[in-house]
Amino acid sequence: MDYLKLFENIIKKHSFLCVGLDSDIEKIPAFLHTEKDPVFEFNKRIIDATHQYAVAYKPNIAFYECYGVKGWTSLESTVRYIKINYPDLFVIADAKRGDIGNTSKMYAKTFLENLPFDAITVAPYMGEDSITPFLSYNDKWVVLLALTSNKGADDFQYHDEDGIKLFERVLSVSQTWGTINNMMYVVGATRAETLRDIRKIVPDHFLLVPGVGAQGGSLEDVARFGMNDKCGLLVNSSRGIIFADNTENFDKVAGEKAKEIQVEMERHLAERKLI
Amino acid sequence: MDYLKLFENIIKKHSFLCVGLDSDIEKIPAFLHTEKDPVFEFNKRIIDATHQYAVAYKPNIAFYECYGVKGWTSLESTVRYIKINYPDLFVIADAKRGDIGNTSKMYAKTFLENLPFDAITVAPYMGEDSITPFLSYNDKWVVLLALTSNKGADDFQYHDEDGIKLFERVLSVSQTWGTINNMMYVVGATRAETLRDIRKIVPDHFLLVPGVGAQGGSLEDVARFGMNDKCGLLVNSSRGIIFADNTENFDKVAGEKAKEIQVEMERHLAERKLI
Repeated sequence: MDYLKLFENIIKKHSFLCVGLDSDIEKIPAFLHTEKDPVFEFNKRIIDATHQYAVAYKPNIAFYECYGVKGWTSLESTVRYIKINYPDLFVIADAKRGDIGNTSKMYAKTFLENLPFDAITVAPYMGEDSITPFLSYNDKWVVLLALTSNKGADDFQYHDEDGIKLFERVLSVSQTWGTINNMMYVVGATRAETLRDIRKIVPDHFLLVPGVGAQGGSLEDVARFGMNDKCGLLVNSSRGIIFADNTENFDKVAGEKAKEIQVEMERHLAERKLI
Repeated sequence: MDYLKLFENIIKKHSFLCVGLDSDIEKIPAFLHTEKDPVFEFNKRIIDATHQYAVAYKPNIAFYECYGVKGWTSLESTVRYIKINYPDLFVIADAKRGDIGNTSKMYAKTFLENLPFDAITVAPYMGEDSITPFLSYNDKWVVLLALTSNKGADDFQYHDEDGIKLFERVLSVSQTWGTINNMMYVVGATRAETLRDIRKIVPDHFLLVPGVGAQGGSLEDVARFGMNDKCGLLVNSSRGIIFADNTENFDKVAGEKAKEIQVEMERHLAERKLI
């Protein structure tokens, strides 16, 4: 899936919502625990109830990996279920990998070849040769960490060298590694005002924005400071949707929450005259 | 395992060798492919043949994760095999994880609780709250990336702010997060001369040094610039040991290669009068 196809899907659905599948087995409704694969069953119902309001899904790999073989089975079933039933959805492995070249090549093979993910989140600390193996796949994406939404972002990302902060250097330097068709950036919503400056460095790239909702970021601010003429945003919400309810109606409630966000997104897209 | 226990094991074995289990199924000897779990069988024989010359093992998670459920099974079997048969060995998950707090907590649970690893490699980009969840386990360690051995290390790690390079900032700032008993640093051997400066910032911490052998680093230089009065070094070798031979004798040859390195390490420990 390229940049324009992603934009086309956003226009079609009036939404730039990414649903985060942080599907912690300890937080899913109790009645699902009798299922053969409770986490997959949970995800399946969440996806069926929310897919019409979303353009992307983002399984958080930590929550699967934690349960070893069982967790990997749930993850594989989930990503294959999405790709078979809703092939237009963009599926991101939130894995934050990154290692020396031959190791990154294995991580790329894992998520972009053996599993049918469209994209994977990658940490920039080890530089270009830790990233390029992920960029060698057609129609697959790297989502590079730039400015994260946690407190620890202050420790290194904000540090300044000759007036250029580390996350700004990451945005500048990494643009030579890929294109707007295979690279986007993580920019936390809790720093929405910074999006104005970030757009000066990366006017065209898509940004994956976590931190709206549970982490306190505002969708209004993200749209105001971050949207470009191809939308250029995927805004993620995880807990606010998937754990909004823990009764037998959890999927219906998740659908309602996703729809609420989609309606607000539709308003922002209309204000920018993109729909 | 704490700092002194690790030093005690080094003294006992006259070795500070860490064997990297980058056990790519495509590179292991062909005759093992008839085994039920070829990668575990390979690792088992490597470990049995090399354990007397090593104090640590470091499975590279990418090479297991790549094969999904099968790979996780091999990984689990390998780490449990080491801990059951050779409980004094220090086992590092080379995973380079790091995410916001609740996600890092899940990664920590995966490797330090659900699997019996002693340590996990973690990337520093997201700062303190991405690291502390790994430090909440007794006798378990974070191995934080500081200066890596790949070319891409130049992209950000060497960048200078007011005379302090990013990797030096990582070394300084992170010392308040943990202690010499639960934190060590990755410092690539291909930059051995830099070890002298690094020892000024972290005189006491253990350093995990990859890049000796296949990547071109010199053990002599690492020992000269990096060794402290508790040795303070774990030097990793992967391909140079585990893929030294691909016949039915691969384990014997791996043992010989490990012994060669151990003998050189013994000399360096003796020169420093640590044994």
